[in-house]
Amino acid sequence: MDAFWEAANSNVPTTVEEKGRRFVEHPGPTNPMVSPLLTDLYQFTMAYAYWKAGKHHDRAVFDLYFRKNPFGGEYTVFGGLEECIRLIANFELKEEEISFLRSVMPTCEDGFFDYLRALDCSDVDVYAISEGSTVFPKVPLMRVEGPVAVVQLLETPFLNLVNYASLVTTNAARHRFVVGKSKALLEFGLRRAQGPDGGISASRYCYMGGFDATSNVAAGRFFSIPLRGTHSHAFVSSFVSTDEIVDKSLCSHDGSSTCEDFVNAVRSWLNKLQVLSDSLHGAFGETNQSELAAFISYALAMPNNFLALVDTYDVMKSGIPNFCAVALALRDMGYKATGIRLDSGDLAYLSIESRKYFRVIEKEFCVPGFGNLLITASNDLNEETIDALNKQGHEVDAFGIGTYLVTCYSQAALGCVFKLVEINGQPRIKLSEDVSKVTIPCKKRCYRLYGREGYALLDLMTGENEAPPKEGERILCRHPFSESKRAYVVPQRVEELLNVSAKLYDFIHFLWLNEAPVGELQHVWLTFYSVIFMLIFSFFLFGK
Amino acid sequence: MDAFWEAANSNVPTTVEEKGRRFVEHPGPTNPMVSPLLTDLYQFTMAYAYWKAGKHHDRAVFDLYFRKNPFGGEYTVFGGLEECIRLIANFELKEEEISFLRSVMPTCEDGFFDYLRALDCSDVDVYAISEGSTVFPKVPLMRVEGPVAVVQLLETPFLNLVNYASLVTTNAARHRFVVGKSKALLEFGLRRAQGPDGGISASRYCYMGGFDATSNVAAGRFFSIPLRGTHSHAFVSSFVSTDEIVDKSLCSHDGSSTCEDFVNAVRSWLNKLQVLSDSLHGAFGETNQSELAAFISYALAMPNNFLALVDTYDVMKSGIPNFCAVALALRDMGYKATGIRLDSGDLAYLSIESRKYFRVIEKEFCVPGFGNLLITASNDLNEETIDALNKQGHEVDAFGIGTYLVTCYSQAALGCVFKLVEINGQPRIKLSEDVSKVTIPCKKRCYRLYGREGYALLDLMTGENEAPPKEGERILCRHPFSESKRAYVVPQRVEELLNVSAKLYDFIHFLWLNEAPVGELQHVWLTFYSVIFMLIFSFFLFGK
Repeated sequence: MDAFWEAANSNVPTTVEEKGRRFVEHPGPTNPMVSPLLTDLYQFTMAYAYWKAGKHHDRAVFDLYFRKNPFGGEYTVFGGLEECIRLIANFELKEEEISFLRSVMPTCEDGFFDYLRALDCSDVDVYAISEGSTVFPKVPLMRVEGPVAVVQLLETPFLNLVNYASLVTTNAARHRFVVGKSKALLEFGLRRAQGPDGGISASRYCYMGGFDATSNVAAGRFFSIPLRGTHSHAFVSSFVSTDEIVDKSLCSHDGSSTCEDFVNAVRSWLNKLQVLSDSLHGAFGETNQSELAAFISYALAMPNNFLALVDTYDVMKSGIPNFCAVALALRDMGYKATGIRLDSGDLAYLSIESRKYFRVIEKEFCVPGFGNLLITASNDLNEETIDALNKQGHEVDAFGIGTYLVTCYSQAALGCVFKLVEINGQPRIKLSEDVSKVTIPCKKRCYRLYGREGYALLDLMTGENEAPPKEGERILCRHPFSESKRAYVVPQRVEELLNVSAKLYDFIHFLWLNEAPVGELQHVWLTFYSVIFMLIFSFFLFGK
Repeated sequence: MDAFWEAANSNVPTTVEEKGRRFVEHPGPTNPMVSPLLTDLYQFTMAYAYWKAGKHHDRAVFDLYFRKNPFGGEYTVFGGLEECIRLIANFELKEEEISFLRSVMPTCEDGFFDYLRALDCSDVDVYAISEGSTVFPKVPLMRVEGPVAVVQLLETPFLNLVNYASLVTTNAARHRFVVGKSKALLEFGLRRAQGPDGGISASRYCYMGGFDATSNVAAGRFFSIPLRGTHSHAFVSSFVSTDEIVDKSLCSHDGSSTCEDFVNAVRSWLNKLQVLSDSLHGAFGETNQSELAAFISYALAMPNNFLALVDTYDVMKSGIPNFCAVALALRDMGYKATGIRLDSGDLAYLSIESRKYFRVIEKEFCVPGFGNLLITASNDLNEETIDALNKQGHEVDAFGIGTYLVTCYSQAALGCVFKLVEINGQPRIKLSEDVSKVTIPCKKRCYRLYGREGYALLDLMTGENEAPPKEGERILCRHPFSESKRAYVVPQRVEELLNVSAKLYDFIHFLWLNEAPVGELQHVWLTFYSVIFMLIFSFFLFGK
């Protein structure tokens, strides 16, 4: 298992000797549960019907796209492409999978299972916008071309791998937009995510969408995402009093001295804070002793990274004084505390009061920097609550976001679809009473047109053989379904979205070592085009 | 990989020889991505702080529960327990996982990593309500007891494994409730689910919640769920005309004869239907030829299971006549068609019109049973749309449900929490300004009390050492937070919810072969109590 696991999750392809030819094994899907069987049964029953009709090799073109931006928004960020590639690069049905299919479809002829046994994606071409790009409704994120039976098998896993990935990446980007560039965003959603993979994917794609770190250790390991985490309310409640602390000593940061009774050092700081309680706006009696014991224990374990959750009992009367006493005692030993986390109550008010408290201490005790200690906020945050916090004013430096982010609570699904647009060179269309569900037929070219200031203006689709739009030349662009929406555009720059690019070379390099005969390159089945990440424009038009 | 995969997904534990002792290997988590690292970083930083304080062996009791039923409803169905068991039965940190943790927590002492290296869950006791039971707010679904550092590590994965599983099981049960017992429910959500595991878990737990089948082949294989699926719109559009059909012959069901030109047989049935078009309420001209070719090809491939998607072009003018012509031609060869699927439009109206059409054919052509052909409906269905269909009247026999079901669109997360209630025998409480967030301290016993008609009345929690409620004896039950809610209850039957049961033996049997010395049984760490599946009652009270 481990060997597989490592190979599957390694970014470095391994070399394998098989049938006398050396080739490079492309890493498989991150989640080993992703296999050719992760599809709808009807893809296999259709494959059989195609095979029976001798039609399975018909060359089909499918577009993968969505019809509407999620969250009532104006953009979507494309995620999931890498996992699609990992799937097709390793697409093969194992003998036990074929046996299972045979048990499910007992009337199918043996020849069909022989066909499945030999199946791979070497005849499939994928053209895609690059992962992480901003994308818009109806413009294909991916165009998949190949034998109709094989491409149909890919429909369900591709949609599964792209839909949630793009949705949660977009959600993360929206959170980044609302908090601004200067704040830290931490993804804390694992416990509320839709299953283990929901949690791991959420961490990965939130990072892609603009988050800074995650609490999810497995995701940190798989995808090299920075990790964050300190302690919970249960940690605080698990202590009863400082009498529990057996080893009270703390060696100074530079190793030059040892404080034999750190508990006592903290207590004397608490007394000093008591004396100052008037200027600290928060007259307090005795602080909670279980909390104090927990903070001291945590500081003794993590003196270099002391970040305390201060709302288990009472933020201003207990949590903040206890935290500050420990932070000041740590400082006497050469350590710089990190900050606090607020997980309940009025986060705007509490963050402002906490900041004031830190500033008074900075001033009263001449502790430079103490006023700037990190304030992290969590507790069912989402776009709306952060926006409300922004409007109220707050002193939060970092937001920990979970449930609403990872489950995409305000819209839990993106409706990507995978539609046949051409077969054997003939355009195909699916009509619908709902005009937004009519498919746009034919193999298309897609361009992003840029204006004078370097901003993207719109995405343009044309037929495959139409002349491409030219820089500096006026072109009439029309909405495909809304006749009145049209505009003349003079693009300053034209970027093709679905195309072969220099990256193709890197990918080929992954797949075939130099030893492979040049002839093998005819089965090049993946093309990329790198599009810079943008969050700017809003609607697309259809080329005349 | 495959050996592992098979072992992990086998229901039969395998025997392993290790350190000279034979023991039974309990199957690991279904998703190999579930490991002790699938947790929040703070569980490890806390573990270190506990370890540094010498407190890591403190005996802690945590309750896993939720505060509010999802979907504005009155019940929740508990799912995910088996996966929690699979995790703890195989809980160990591998060397490379420890190396990773060391890189993340570089200031921790070596002794801590030695401690992690030796960690398992042999000292952890899990008491749980059995999976599939109806459960209610604040009553623990699981009580987890053990060394505080270890139990904390389990918090995040347990919540991850229980939250979505219970949510989607509940959602499925609600769909079953709204469609009634007589209709078939098919889960079609894989493509829109939150990632691969979201899709596989959805299929599994929807089946547990009352669905009949899934389209998800991987889930069908893992969990022996019946599979359903026929063909898509793309299959229909991929055909252009019946000229494409090369082999037009069909052998009869009993093998006694062959129809050499099945296309022609279908065409002559189409002509007969044309003649009858007045009584068929749906005068039609020529039906769509691409659709006709697709239906014939599918029937030639799957004559025993012909189910056609009839809404690619026009249901009543093309889809239904084409389907009926193929079904009637199949019947001439001894095959019984299965039915149709409707995936757009007014499903109530179209199902009623289709049924009428089938009945006219049954009568006009003396085809017994033709009026009862299966009508399946899909297209963004959910509880509300099915309820609306019920009110309008419809002729749908089976519902295929996807997006809204598997993503739990109307409420994408269940808020299960994991709270410390006791440590070293001392009760712990977490206060909160929000009274619903105050934890209920102490190790508790939970009972389900039944009334005279055999229905459950309420769930009762008592302190561990309180006398249990007795059958036939009046007991005052009180709501824990709402003083005015109280009632005298005379239970006719009392069922303990979290308890040791006969099932424990089976589980021990899983873990240790008879060869293991009896002394080994001291580390029994899992207990079950079987609670029957109920969907009946609505609120719980707190024992006086």
